[in-house]
Formats: sequence, structure tokens, C-alpha cells
Amino acid sequence: MRDLIADMAARGRSAQRVLAAMTDAQKGDALRHAAAALRDAAPAILSGNAKDIAAGEARGLSSAMLDRLRLDDARLAGIADAVEQVAGLPDPVGQVIDRSERPNGLRLSRVRVPIGVIGIVYESRPNVTADAAALCVRAGNAVILRGGSEAVHSNRAILAALAAGLAKGGIPEDAVQLIPTQDRAAVGALLQASGAVDMLVPRGGKSLVARVQAEARVPVLAHLDGICHTYIHTAAAPDMAEAVALNAKMRRTGICGAMETLLIDAAYPGASALVGKLLDAGCELRGDGRAQALDPRIVAATDEDWDTEYLEAVLSVAVVDGPDAAMAHIAAHSSGHTDAIVTADDAVAERFLNTVDSAIVMANASSQFADGGEFGLGAEIGIATGRLHARGPVALEGLTTYKWQVRGSGQTRP
Amino acid sequence: MRDLIADMAARGRSAQRVLAAMTDAQKGDALRHAAAALRDAAPAILSGNAKDIAAGEARGLSSAMLDRLRLDDARLAGIADAVEQVAGLPDPVGQVIDRSERPNGLRLSRVRVPIGVIGIVYESRPNVTADAAALCVRAGNAVILRGGSEAVHSNRAILAALAAGLAKGGIPEDAVQLIPTQDRAAVGALLQASGAVDMLVPRGGKSLVARVQAEARVPVLAHLDGICHTYIHTAAAPDMAEAVALNAKMRRTGICGAMETLLIDAAYPGASALVGKLLDAGCELRGDGRAQALDPRIVAATDEDWDTEYLEAVLSVAVVDGPDAAMAHIAAHSSGHTDAIVTADDAVAERFLNTVDSAIVMANASSQFADGGEFGLGAEIGIATGRLHARGPVALEGLTTYKWQVRGSGQTRP
Repeated sequence: MRDLIADMAARGRSAQRVLAAMTDAQKGDALRHAAAALRDAAPAILSGNAKDIAAGEARGLSSAMLDRLRLDDARLAGIADAVEQVAGLPDPVGQVIDRSERPNGLRLSRVRVPIGVIGIVYESRPNVTADAAALCVRAGNAVILRGGSEAVHSNRAILAALAAGLAKGGIPEDAVQLIPTQDRAAVGALLQASGAVDMLVPRGGKSLVARVQAEARVPVLAHLDGICHTYIHTAAAPDMAEAVALNAKMRRTGICGAMETLLIDAAYPGASALVGKLLDAGCELRGDGRAQALDPRIVAATDEDWDTEYLEAVLSVAVVDGPDAAMAHIAAHSSGHTDAIVTADDAVAERFLNTVDSAIVMANASSQFADGGEFGLGAEIGIATGRLHARGPVALEGLTTYKWQVRGSGQTRP
Repeated sequence: MRDLIADMAARGRSAQRVLAAMTDAQKGDALRHAAAALRDAAPAILSGNAKDIAAGEARGLSSAMLDRLRLDDARLAGIADAVEQVAGLPDPVGQVIDRSERPNGLRLSRVRVPIGVIGIVYESRPNVTADAAALCVRAGNAVILRGGSEAVHSNRAILAALAAGLAKGGIPEDAVQLIPTQDRAAVGALLQASGAVDMLVPRGGKSLVARVQAEARVPVLAHLDGICHTYIHTAAAPDMAEAVALNAKMRRTGICGAMETLLIDAAYPGASALVGKLLDAGCELRGDGRAQALDPRIVAATDEDWDTEYLEAVLSVAVVDGPDAAMAHIAAHSSGHTDAIVTADDAVAERFLNTVDSAIVMANASSQFADGGEFGLGAEIGIATGRLHARGPVALEGLTTYKWQVRGSGQTRP
């Protein structure tokens, strides 16, 4: 398996060198070819997908998993459209971050360049094959994909169309590769491929991300948990507090930006009404003693609840004494993804935004906005909660690094 | 050892939270107190250093190692001055990287924040204790230091002065900690402290860096090798080519930015004169067949030479056919640190600067300029050749990350 991954990475590296020399327009054109190829290959992709669905049904996959796996004309059109949209995003490669001139006349600039070879490990959604590959290529990177075994035929058909389309636009087919075996040892070899692979992005559930983070010798960009807090300050307008909290929890409960813990200031006058709205909307609330006193339907939280990402219509609720207690709770329990405050007091909002040390901090907005698209980044490869490189929603810029260019006229160092 | 490191990291984290809330002026003042404390503690530091020197002599350390270890009034004054200089550098924390406003009225900004708790593992030079700690603190980070056993008394005395000075300025003493034991297992525990320590910076020889890179579960910012190339293009002016090559190799042979391989274009007319100058300056040259033909004093290079960082007055020399061959050699053998071209042809220079994929690429300048101070960054924590986070000379900005601040007026996601 090490040889397989080493060979794929070496071919990816060669392809990446070609890609690195291509212009913005050339990469955009190639991605538009890829979108067209995905549309042309619809019959092959849907037929591959039908095989995966049949196998999944035979293996007894849950209906939720089968739904994530299933492609139809509309979903496939969406995949191709997404690739076309990535083609239209501004190219980060070649952007000058900053320039300076030294007293000795040396002119320095920092210029964005591709990261190199990126590994993506993901689960059942076959759209990731196209989405992730398109983003990597747009920023000049080669990509090695490892999808879930349940989507193997869908992924192969998508990859084949994508690679053929990119090749029409002059991008070597090896720029996008799919690990050909479902042997789990291949993932192990990918995670260990330090030096050959430059970055890994796991996309999927917590156990996948945890395995990648635990085993990888290659730098990983990811988030493990989205334990997101919303703190309702004393000065929050009740209408806004209720709208934001309901949206943060209930709009979609299964996304990483969904609120998992509600912190209510002890002095906030609308606490009972707020928890009532959430309960009425069908959310289970698990509270500390003071929260339970707000409504008899609130069950008792255990210690574990404060560190749990439910990803369903369950919410932990604590009553806190002022912003400092709220921020102390967040510092102790947040996963560093997204934490929010609702308040009409600007000074308190600013203190919260400056003090809370999460990838995304929000005032007076639903934590469900934690998304590259909503942030105007076009598309995202994922959301990172690590502290190095990119943080929060990671889009094209996060798929680049920089180099220093130094232009001289024969300077020597004294 | 795990408990020791976990406890130090937890205390560092608490101290870092205080530090994160301090202003630019407060941190600057505290660092000036630290510089003053280092000056006041000169007798204690020099007496600690004398113990280290005596122990080193008894253990038979080389004179080069003893020289690196030795402090005197002038060197100690230099250490204090360097801390004072760091106090005066602009604070990166709070800088707004970019802002945007979304159609729904959400206002986004990316703001620089400290990384958190940084581990520094280093060897015999005791000045690193003060230099690295000052840089980390300037950018709002706590630091856990692990110096070499040969400098233990010097490091303890420096750290005690530093911490006392910082405390006078309101920075908790736990912001700068020195691992109290010389047990190697402590380093292992530090390298494994994922989540508790946010970043590691190894400072020292190749074996130290290699161990840290191989064992660390915490992200590492470092470079292993500085196999730096200088390519003399056909259109290089001989005066410039000779001056740049001599400086790149011979100014100081032991630094990571020193040239280790000279690539001479087969069509460059001044090749014999160039290698003659290097040989006359006392440099051993190891060449491929065509290079050997330039001067009988050039010995034959082995395959290994092209991947060797000599760090002494030895240089490998290859004759190449044009820029593409030069860049192919660099792609195959460079460590990605610093690679340079000398040419009067701007188009060739630009192609080299855009194509060569190293942290630093230079045209018409000595690779010995690869240094944070020379780049105007004030001081550097090291030079990184990894592809994530900071690349090239890493200074204060590289000791920060960013967070997204989102300011709304009650927006909910549709």
C-alpha cells in the first residue's frame, strides 16, 4: 500500500507542476470542460450509482445513508453546476500578499502558490469527489481522493468524467486521482505519506476525523466537533434572542454550525419564553438546576452534556451569571468552532468577540451562518478548528501557501 | 512526564488568556521590564553559565560547543537588547486581515489572534531562552521551553529573570516556563501534547529537528535542511555571478541559507573563472564530469553530494543546459529553503522566481539574505520549509493565527 500511495503521490506531484504553471483562464476553462464532462457522463454515473444503491440496500444501509449516497438527474446537475461555479471563482495563485523594499535595494514579495498534493478522505456523499477535486485544482493542487466503499462505483464514474474533462483543458489526468482499492490499509498509507502528500482534509463523521487526526503524519485541516454556544445576554432583545436561538438550533440540527449549548444570562428577563419556544418547536432541552426551574419540560443535564455535539433536536441549557461566566463556560466546553452572543449592548458584544477564542465568533447572528458560502468564499473544502494555517471556513485561499520572491541587483550580505 | 507537561500546558493556557487580553503597550512594557531584569540578573546568569561551562569542560564538549554555550557581559547585554528590540516590534494581535459585508448585512472580519501555547525545543545556545520567549510573548503566546542539558543553569537563570520582569509588567509568570527536568522523556511528552500545546518550534541541529518532526503529534514549524542552490544563467554578468556565489557560499558556511550546490549554465562564458574564485577562496568543490573539466582541482561528486547540506566550505557543482535543466535539478534536490538565480535576463529571472517552488526564491542576490532580520521582520523564531501556515522566515505574524468575527443585527439563516 505504501508503494501504491507513493506512486500516486509522485504522479500527482508531476501533474501538479504542470498545473502550477497554468494561468487562471486555463484552469477555469479546464474546470468548465470537467463540468461538461460530468453532464455528458450522466448515464455512466447514474448507472454506477445504481450499483452502489443496490449494494447498499443489500448490506442494509440506513435510509439516511442511502439518501446521502443516491444521485439523480437533479443532484448530478447540481454537482456539475458546482464545478462550473468553482471555475468562476477568483484564482488565489499569484496573488501578492505584501511587498517591501529593503534599504539595500532588495525587493521582497510574498506570493500565493498552491500547497501541492492534497489528500481528501471522505464518506458516503459522492458529490465530494467532484467538489473537493474542483476546489483543489482551482488553487493549483493535485488531489488524491479516498471515498467511502459504499460509493465506490459512483466515485469512479465521477472521477473518470472529471479527469477526462480536465485533460481536455490541458490538466494532466493525474491531477485528480482516486485510490483504486477499498483496503483500509490504503488510508493508513495515505495518512503516513509525510513529504509525499502535503495536507489532508477529512470530510465526514467524527470517527473518520478522529482516526485521521490520531494517525496522520501529514498536516490535517479539519474540525472534530462543532460544540457551538449561543449566549443570551441580559440586554438581548427577546424577539432577536428567540429568532436567533431557534434558527441556530432547529434550522438544520445535523450541521456542524448548529447550536448545541444555550447559555442564558440569569438576568435575562425572557428566559422562560425563550426555552418555551425551543421546547414547543420540538427540541429536547437538558438543563442545569437553574435552567430546569425555567420550565418543567427541561430534563436534567449530566456533566457529559456540556461536551456533547448532539447533531439532533437536543440542546443543553445553562443559566450563567453575566458575560464572564458565559465566556468561562465557553472556554471550558467549546470545540472552538463557532460561538455567538445575542445582545443589544455593543460594548459587551465587542468584549465577547475579542475574548472568545474560537475560529468563528458572532454577535447577533445564527451560528448556522458558519459556512464558506455564507461567508462569501464561494465554496469551502471544510471548516478548520486547528490553530495553524487556515481557521474557520476553508476555501481557495486555505488551499494555498506562499513563497517569498526576492529581486536584487547583485546584493551580497555584509 | 505526561502529567508534568499537561500541568505546565494548563498553567500556560491560563497565563495565555491573561496575555491575550493585554494591549500592545502593556506587552511592550512588560518586555522592557524583562530586558531590565535580565540586565539586573547578570551576576546570577553569568554564575549559572560558569557552572555550565565547567560541567561542559569536564564532559569534554568541543570548543565550538563551549563557545556557543559561553556568556559574557557583552553577550548578555546583547540578549537583553534583543528582548528590548522585540518589545518595540509592532504587535500583530488585533490586526484586521480583511473585512467584508454580506448582502444580508452580516459584517465579517478576520482578526489576528495568538496561537496559544508554543513549545520550543532547542540546543546549547542560552540566548534562545530569552529570544524565543520574548517573540512568543510579544505575539500573545505562552511558551514552554526545553533547552539543552549543557545549558541548564544558564537557562534557569535567564528564565527566572525573564519571568520576574514580565510579572512586573502584569504578565503571569506561567507565560514563560522552562521544563524543570532534563529527562528526555519530557521532550517526548511535549511532542505528544496534542491539544494542550498548539505548535512546536525546534531550534537546533538536524538530528533534533528530525526527531521532533518524526515524533510530534503537535504541529511543527521548522526546516530540516537548507540545501540551497544558486544557478548562474548564461546571461549572468561575471562580476555579479562571482560576488553572489562567493558570498552565498563563503560569508558564513554554517548557516541554513548558505549555498550548497552551484549550478552553472553550460553556455555561461565565465565558468572557469567562477569556480577558480571559489577554489582560491578555500572552498572544496565536488563536481559532475562537466564541472570537473572546468578546473583540475574539482573532485568528483557522488550521487549523495546533490542531497547534502555541508554547512562547511564544501560545494557541489553541476553544469546544466539551460534554465529548465537547472530548475529540474532544483526540483529534484532542493530542500525547499532558498534557491537563487543570477541573470541579467529579466524574463528568465521571472520564470525562475515563478516556477521554483521553495520557501524563498531569489534573483541576483546572495542566498545568505534568507533571514527574518534581513527581510525586515525584526526577529525570527526560525525558518520554515513546510507548506502549511508560515513559510520562509517566521516572525511575529507566524506566531499568530486568526479568527472570524461576525457582526449581525439578528440575522437568521433561511
